[in-house]
Amino acid sequence: MKIGIIGATGYGGAELVRIFKYHPHVDECILYSSSGEGQSYSQSYPHLTTITDQTLKAIDPAAIVQETDAVFLATPAGVSSELTPKLMNQGVPIIDLSGDLRIQDGATYEAWYKRRAADEASVQQAVYGLSELNRDKIQQAEVIANPGCFPTAVLLGLAPLMKQNLIDESMIIIDAKTGVSGAGRSASLGTHFSELNDNFKIYKVNEHQHTPEIEQILREWNPQTANVTFSTHLVPMTRGIMATMYTQLKSDVTKEELMKQMKGFYEDSYFVRVREHGVYPQTKEVYGSNFCDIGFHLDERTGRLTIVSVIDNLMKGAAGQAVQNFNIIKGLHEEAGLTMTPLYP
Amino acid sequence: MKIGIIGATGYGGAELVRIFKYHPHVDECILYSSSGEGQSYSQSYPHLTTITDQTLKAIDPAAIVQETDAVFLATPAGVSSELTPKLMNQGVPIIDLSGDLRIQDGATYEAWYKRRAADEASVQQAVYGLSELNRDKIQQAEVIANPGCFPTAVLLGLAPLMKQNLIDESMIIIDAKTGVSGAGRSASLGTHFSELNDNFKIYKVNEHQHTPEIEQILREWNPQTANVTFSTHLVPMTRGIMATMYTQLKSDVTKEELMKQMKGFYEDSYFVRVREHGVYPQTKEVYGSNFCDIGFHLDERTGRLTIVSVIDNLMKGAAGQAVQNFNIIKGLHEEAGLTMTPLYP
Amino acid sequence: MKIGIIGATGYGGAELVRIFKYHPHVDECILYSSSGEGQSYSQSYPHLTTITDQTLKAIDPAAIVQETDAVFLATPAGVSSELTPKLMNQGVPIIDLSGDLRIQDGATYEAWYKRRAADEASVQQAVYGLSELNRDKIQQAEVIANPGCFPTAVLLGLAPLMKQNLIDESMIIIDAKTGVSGAGRSASLGTHFSELNDNFKIYKVNEHQHTPEIEQILREWNPQTANVTFSTHLVPMTRGIMATMYTQLKSDVTKEELMKQMKGFYEDSYFVRVREHGVYPQTKEVYGSNFCDIGFHLDERTGRLTIVSVIDNLMKGAAGQAVQNFNIIKGLHEEAGLTMTPLYP
Amino acid sequence: MKIGIIGATGYGGAELVRIFKYHPHVDECILYSSSGEGQSYSQSYPHLTTITDQTLKAIDPAAIVQETDAVFLATPAGVSSELTPKLMNQGVPIIDLSGDLRIQDGATYEAWYKRRAADEASVQQAVYGLSELNRDKIQQAEVIANPGCFPTAVLLGLAPLMKQNLIDESMIIIDAKTGVSGAGRSASLGTHFSELNDNFKIYKVNEHQHTPEIEQILREWNPQTANVTFSTHLVPMTRGIMATMYTQLKSDVTKEELMKQMKGFYEDSYFVRVREHGVYPQTKEVYGSNFCDIGFHLDERTGRLTIVSVIDNLMKGAAGQAVQNFNIIKGLHEEAGLTMTPLYP
Repeated sequence: MKIGIIGATGYGGAELVRIFKYHPHVDECILYSSSGEGQSYSQSYPHLTTITDQTLKAIDPAAIVQETDAVFLATPAGVSSELTPKLMNQGVPIIDLSGDLRIQDGATYEAWYKRRAADEASVQQAVYGLSELNRDKIQQAEVIANPGCFPTAVLLGLAPLMKQNLIDESMIIIDAKTGVSGAGRSASLGTHFSELNDNFKIYKVNEHQHTPEIEQILREWNPQTANVTFSTHLVPMTRGIMATMYTQLKSDVTKEELMKQMKGFYEDSYFVRVREHGVYPQTKEVYGSNFCDIGFHLDERTGRLTIVSVIDNLMKGAAGQAVQNFNIIKGLHEEAGLTMTPLYP
Repeated sequence: MKIGIIGATGYGGAELVRIFKYHPHVDECILYSSSGEGQSYSQSYPHLTTITDQTLKAIDPAAIVQETDAVFLATPAGVSSELTPKLMNQGVPIIDLSGDLRIQDGATYEAWYKRRAADEASVQQAVYGLSELNRDKIQQAEVIANPGCFPTAVLLGLAPLMKQNLIDESMIIIDAKTGVSGAGRSASLGTHFSELNDNFKIYKVNEHQHTPEIEQILREWNPQTANVTFSTHLVPMTRGIMATMYTQLKSDVTKEELMKQMKGFYEDSYFVRVREHGVYPQTKEVYGSNFCDIGFHLDERTGRLTIVSVIDNLMKGAAGQAVQNFNIIKGLHEEAGLTMTPLYP
Repeated sequence: MKIGIIGATGYGGAELVRIFKYHPHVDECILYSSSGEGQSYSQSYPHLTTITDQTLKAIDPAAIVQETDAVFLATPAGVSSELTPKLMNQGVPIIDLSGDLRIQDGATYEAWYKRRAADEASVQQAVYGLSELNRDKIQQAEVIANPGCFPTAVLLGLAPLMKQNLIDESMIIIDAKTGVSGAGRSASLGTHFSELNDNFKIYKVNEHQHTPEIEQILREWNPQTANVTFSTHLVPMTRGIMATMYTQLKSDVTKEELMKQMKGFYEDSYFVRVREHGVYPQTKEVYGSNFCDIGFHLDERTGRLTIVSVIDNLMKGAAGQAVQNFNIIKGLHEEAGLTMTPLYP
Repeated sequence: MKIGIIGATGYGGAELVRIFKYHPHVDECILYSSSGEGQSYSQSYPHLTTITDQTLKAIDPAAIVQETDAVFLATPAGVSSELTPKLMNQGVPIIDLSGDLRIQDGATYEAWYKRRAADEASVQQAVYGLSELNRDKIQQAEVIANPGCFPTAVLLGLAPLMKQNLIDESMIIIDAKTGVSGAGRSASLGTHFSELNDNFKIYKVNEHQHTPEIEQILREWNPQTANVTFSTHLVPMTRGIMATMYTQLKSDVTKEELMKQMKGFYEDSYFVRVREHGVYPQTKEVYGSNFCDIGFHLDERTGRLTIVSVIDNLMKGAAGQAVQNFNIIKGLHEEAGLTMTPLYP
């Protein structure tokens, strides 16, 4: 198959290219870029010298649906809103890595993203691509709103116990940390090495755009879910997300029971690895891979439950999950092209 | 004056040496070490070549109280318990950077530290050295239990509003992050560069030894304080601590009122800098200095108050605060030797 | 096929495990360790949780040659000297990642490694495993002395022009830099995060054990080669080697000619990528991959030629090259299992 | 005294502010900026919150010479060329941290810097500010061309032996490495954290603008000095420079003799610390300080001499040396304000 990547010059695009090099069912990636048209892709990404000799093509929706079997949008906010309607409904699945189509309510989108929402038709058609939790709908989908990086780690961590109604929906506190590649390739003081090295910062407190996304999905599981507390921090590392989540249980449950729920829930999900009670995953343990590792601790002294979830923000947090959804849509083995072992050290 | 540093070869000891080089009232540091006796100090710390030509001396309590005007213990757990009784009550103030004398209740100490507690006499005499909050007692003290690094950041962040009884004492959730120097100079897999670089890990969830210390002080302010939730994370950086604290307010207070309380509380405390609402400090902004910077956010959507506190773990989290306490005891200007500007970048 | 890895708990061993997960012709890695016998491998390396459920087996040479089709020694210095004689000549190829069998002359080995050399029989039989330069001999070999990380980068960089006798053999100056994983997984002050972070150090000046190895091979190409100047530096990064080499040309050659030589020499070597004149590779561009990228600059102002060669020390500098040699010995496609795209960012 | 800093918003400017906070003879820094006029300085540099409440002033040469006792230009290339003539000859010493006034020959400057050279009058009047080597001229100077960071490390390393004519001037090979702060505060792909972290790159081979500066000074000592080979590398760290220099001796000299020369040469220079033969300095050992540490190795196997020199690029490589020159000009103690101990770890 041939797949197309729009916005190939961003980190998400580069990661898709890396994954597809190994994908058993994809022979070619066609790369589209507005800014880079006509340029050699390995000019942007010299690590791909001799691996790919592609030239970036202009974004022509009509041509794209003709020459590809699936399209990935690894574009900045606002682009998918514009392009999806032109690509939709022509038999070519569209997987959008941006946030444009994730938020059901347009007003909510605009309040948080401070830009015009996509049109309702696109949003309605878009299926939320949290692979492990939405397989059935993804299978039938033609448009996928690929989840945000933080929501992926958060929702996979909370799903087993929230769906079992074990977690007190009035108190969900999320302290999230990410590596810098999550900010993309644009240069700014905020991604400057000398400003970030040997530095730890909190950058969004209760105002991150991923907040409504997290709440929207939590409310699909439990409509009573209160607004969450969600803060994000920047770690001086390239890849990785850890979400440390503080919750309360609704009733007395032993840690053995919790373990049983969590492991059972992900029994058939190759990519989600639940650790033993008190064993916590590190971001490096999933580096460069599509795994999401989860650990937890039930504290007798307070009754609170701390859940720790780690992913690689470019893989399970973006490109990896996008390919996982592509595999589901195309009826392929869900792990196709995604079985790379984490890079260690 | 002459001061003595026992355990000079650890990072805390090295930081004390750095501070005292600039201290207007101290002419000499005498360095004591059990493991390093007879060695040249700059052999351990080549950055001090030509700056100091000291030889490490054996730990002889009788000699130490003779030849120094104050003694700092920058020693591992268990050493101060043994040495303090031999140094005490001879007119020479003792400032202990370890946790040996901080916990009032011996059984609590033993439960958390998994070792025998110091004798009651030492613990009773030891005054908790959180400078900004305990000046009066410190002034009269002969033995100082210098606070732990995390507790310093946490307690300075919570003090203004907890002491005003504005914070709901039943819910205090602390998500703390530290640079690696907090683990000391011992080599282990847990401090190995190849294991930590580009990695983020959570290492203690609800079991850090600083938990009883935090709770003990919070209960001095509000005896009703429930057990806290406290997790610690390791950041791939050398210095710095950020404590992100999640709390609930007891009643409706505006952010302007909170700001007034917080700034007012630290009006006369040179080292604590409270930021404007929504402006958050970064660990690099206090790097190598004795400052503690605090920011906060009152969230309308949830009513929760997030407080962010940063320090340099070796300075305000250890050596800097120790010298600040020394200054108070000796009736010196509190900032003597501690006015170094943070290193940036 | 089944392959055995002795010394599986080191970084070289872990990297072999990662590569073989993707190798089309290897179904199983059997892992042997003296220190870790009986332990679960994923206990040492949690990133492999659910990926492998191997238990480490004791090192029993007789059993090993029975149950494997090839053996890799990813062991510290001195172990291969002892084991290879017991594994040799039983039809099972042995690939030694250590330096034990690389140096032809026992006295030279002992002078530089400060330990007893392997017996002559093993050393004689061992073929130097610089894949691109020694394919024919490797094909016939039963014992491979896998090259050191620095020598790999250095020799691949120098080979085209030295073999053409274009380089003045009296002046070869090598300034090499490496990431910390090259030092292995043992904890010491020299690999301590707080000591290495934000630090750059030179650690061996004209005394690195790779010096005789480099000189031995250079003299195979040109017996007149003088002793080289070789210094090694430690970079605060996990993986990567850059060798910056300063040479003089014997006669006037244009940079176009040099480019022609270099590109021509590696025409059929998939893993060696020669860049355009004045375009220099970065270590990140080969991260996690088996590539060796080379750049160079001919300076008109001095007549000197600077050659820059980069590799990933764990891949092309160790495990990757070992598997490449394995592929050659077994008559497989040389790139089998080694086509992973570099990880970027 | 009051000093003025033009271009205060760059890292060089911020470092001058940090130094002057501790300077016994300077009470005030007045900060000038073209881009930041009217802004609060701590807006650019929050680490200075409460430490300075300065507002940046416009660059008005007439006002500047009125209200300051010395002026520092911490400006990008080209600004000093324009401003110095307007500030000169009015009794106020000018210390230029840029390269504008360092190169005696205008044509050379233009060839390497690719911009118009400063006018001859300014260049003639400018004294090269390599403090330890040019004290007498600096004392009488009114305009100082503060040396580049790399040249400082290189020239201090080579001076003792070159001035004794012990080094073969036909072969000087310099392999230099720097932390990222040397590139300044501007954001670009070249200073982007995700591009630089865990990466090592060579960025200028035989074309760095510091080449003519190094050659100009070397030729003051030995007019026969051939063109040097000079390459620069970027290390994933914030501060620090190491220059590893490869040279040949003109005659047989023992390492003891070399040590004697080197130590003797810097006997009265507090900031230059020469190490024992075979003991090499690390960049962290001078971090945040004005020291330059030097080590060397005389190789019997090749007769070559490797000299290693480290500095902090923002201190001895820029602001620290600028203040050292200021002290010399004003007849103050040369170390005033510069005795801060290196920050470790």
